Amino acid sequence: MRADLIIHSIGQLVTPGSQPQRGGQLGTLTVLRDAALAVRDGLVADLGPAARIRAQWQAPQELDAEGMVAIPGFVDPHTHALYCGDRAAEFELRVQGKSYLEIMAAGGGIMATVRRVRAASLQELVAETLPRLQAMLAHGTTTAEIKTGYGLETASELKMLAAWLELDRATPLELVPTFLGAHALPEEFRHDPQAYVDLVAEEMLPQVKEWWQEHAAGRPLPFVDVFCEQGAFDLAQTRRILTRARQLGYPLKVHADEFEPLGGTLLAVELGAASADHLVHTPPDQIAILGRSSTVAVALPCTPFGLAEREYTPAQQILARDGLLALATDLNPGTAWCESMQFPLALACRFMGLTPAQALCAATINAAAALKMAGRVGSLQPGMQADLALLEVPDYRHLGYRFGTNLVAMVVKKGRVVWPR
Amino acid sequence: MRADLIIHSIGQLVTPGSQPQRGGQLGTLTVLRDAALAVRDGLVADLGPAARIRAQWQAPQELDAEGMVAIPGFVDPHTHALYCGDRAAEFELRVQGKSYLEIMAAGGGIMATVRRVRAASLQELVAETLPRLQAMLAHGTTTAEIKTGYGLETASELKMLAAWLELDRATPLELVPTFLGAHALPEEFRHDPQAYVDLVAEEMLPQVKEWWQEHAAGRPLPFVDVFCEQGAFDLAQTRRILTRARQLGYPLKVHADEFEPLGGTLLAVELGAASADHLVHTPPDQIAILGRSSTVAVALPCTPFGLAEREYTPAQQILARDGLLALATDLNPGTAWCESMQFPLALACRFMGLTPAQALCAATINAAAALKMAGRVGSLQPGMQADLALLEVPDYRHLGYRFGTNLVAMVVKKGRVVWPR
Repeated sequence: MRADLIIHSIGQLVTPGSQPQRGGQLGTLTVLRDAALAVRDGLVADLGPAARIRAQWQAPQELDAEGMVAIPGFVDPHTHALYCGDRAAEFELRVQGKSYLEIMAAGGGIMATVRRVRAASLQELVAETLPRLQAMLAHGTTTAEIKTGYGLETASELKMLAAWLELDRATPLELVPTFLGAHALPEEFRHDPQAYVDLVAEEMLPQVKEWWQEHAAGRPLPFVDVFCEQGAFDLAQTRRILTRARQLGYPLKVHADEFEPLGGTLLAVELGAASADHLVHTPPDQIAILGRSSTVAVALPCTPFGLAEREYTPAQQILARDGLLALATDLNPGTAWCESMQFPLALACRFMGLTPAQALCAATINAAAALKMAGRVGSLQPGMQADLALLEVPDYRHLGYRFGTNLVAMVVKKGRVVWPR
Repeated sequence: MRADLIIHSIGQLVTPGSQPQRGGQLGTLTVLRDAALAVRDGLVADLGPAARIRAQWQAPQELDAEGMVAIPGFVDPHTHALYCGDRAAEFELRVQGKSYLEIMAAGGGIMATVRRVRAASLQELVAETLPRLQAMLAHGTTTAEIKTGYGLETASELKMLAAWLELDRATPLELVPTFLGAHALPEEFRHDPQAYVDLVAEEMLPQVKEWWQEHAAGRPLPFVDVFCEQGAFDLAQTRRILTRARQLGYPLKVHADEFEPLGGTLLAVELGAASADHLVHTPPDQIAILGRSSTVAVALPCTPFGLAEREYTPAQQILARDGLLALATDLNPGTAWCESMQFPLALACRFMGLTPAQALCAATINAAAALKMAGRVGSLQPGMQADLALLEVPDYRHLGYRFGTNLVAMVVKKGRVVWPR
């Protein structure tokens, strides 16, 4: 049969199946040695022992994997990659003892980035973000969610969406948008939080939808997400915004229980959100309810690590209660400037007790489920997108085991080598 | 005046002075903006504002730093980079609950690597290690210590030294050797530890010296190091080996107090060792004595991180007692396969309370002191080696702040660009 590309001499081809993995199933992998993979029309056409693939498929182009390990490209389902500037000076203060919430209360934290993003032109936003997306790709991520939420006023939030659209055209990394107008309470609403909630629910949500339909015609609507947390938005405010979003047809996500358990996880389940993210302090009874739902628990271990906190998402409890667990970077300029999905895997193995196999499935097929994309990305099965990373290691379990460096030598997106360029 | 090379357009040139920094001095940096650096005969000839350097120096070769941050190349004063194979399967067991000492007791741990290294040819050892040294260089390390200690029999330890010599010729990374025959008790001596101590002291130490004088004529003798730890060598055994080594003229190092406080730090001070390394569980009174000595405290934060332990070297106590603090990777296949010095910096900021400036000085000039090389490497001052890393960031404080990726874009060793190749 005729393919466009055959990737041969794969030392280990390692992939989950095309279904999200719940509870104790997590970590179910197929491992093929001396394998090959045939690509047609940007999709996986076939994969298996090299000899069979060679016998059954012909292609005008071949790629020698040189014995490397092939895995599905990582799916990063929670990032704030779109921003200007940095918060290195704030980091220096923080390591001398200030807490994240103290820094936020003092007008630092998210608001420092908001001031930079509001002042930036569309082109500055795009130009500063593009190298980060390139770094994500170079570390094996082939699909990534990106949130707004550094505008916190209608025009600046729409500017972030416009930057998102330009970035989506400029990079082979596949981008998924999330509107996070309720990321923080902007300074100018400090004394009237309810008015800002009204603004998000009654002005931003309809305008974003209208803008999206005009500028991104034919693409599905962005997710809508709210930071449900002490110092950000309480449960009633979160409910108000997400309910309105659902009425307008948006799919949902929630930042829940990062520092304090406010009930965001239950709300995510109740409203049928695609994911509830962070979940560091979710009470056991809510973990049980989450486990019976189709809402994915997205753990973001780079954030406690970045903040030098000791508590991580209770992955073992989530799995014991049959939950769907995914991993993401939470890439952001405040707590976790980390483009590499390899690093949250290393953290998850050490601090959440995942095996490398479990961490890999959480970072691919389950991460895809957190973006409602599990039918298309996150595994290497016939009919799925041919998105893969080649690791220069003898065994996939070097993921997690090694840390601080990049094990990815080559990245393929929709059947095309996109890194190294 | 005439130079060989001028590096210009340096956005920030950041360097400690040429003296190791004790206690509260740690973190003392000179930061020059829009700077240039002149190189002659592989040494720093001059550095300062670009305009002055341009006016005073001419060179046939120029390097455009494109606004990047220049720092001294990292000095990594504690690595076990020379080995064969991996321990990814052991890692998988460990994240499921086995402790390091349990794995060691079960014949895994160090002994698994010892079996691989004993079985390997010299060429296999060199070929497997070289990519790691290349990765170290690519992450900004320009000088690194490498220990033996995976041979644990005279011939295999000498094979490791021979591999060290070949590697030293094959890479621009400057290598410093350490003989660590007393890294672990080999299986065949399980029932007679004292006989192995005798072997190290009476056979290996003299033979290593003889071998070195024959094969590495003119180079200073390697350091001698002992793993003073429960399950490895007790204080009396450590004293026996290090005393003999000192008689033979070797400079000394000690692995001390990683898991249990056995007194290794005090012994290091008493014997005038260049460094005492690990020091996670060193008692306060011993930290005070260390602080009055010239023995450098080498913290290895990748190791507790790698083992998912909560305790790190008590850096604040060491600094409060006026100690000399350095950082290293401890690169090894069991607990810390990490070639990048940027990652221990990120850990030190978060878990040892260092500022980026302190971490940088600990990883350069103080790390050089741990190798008795502070007069030659670890700072960018006239007369020091022109060893530097160029970081693709706007401010040196991105070191520590960002994690999981490589911020280094270019590396210069003795005035020559060695990465990218």
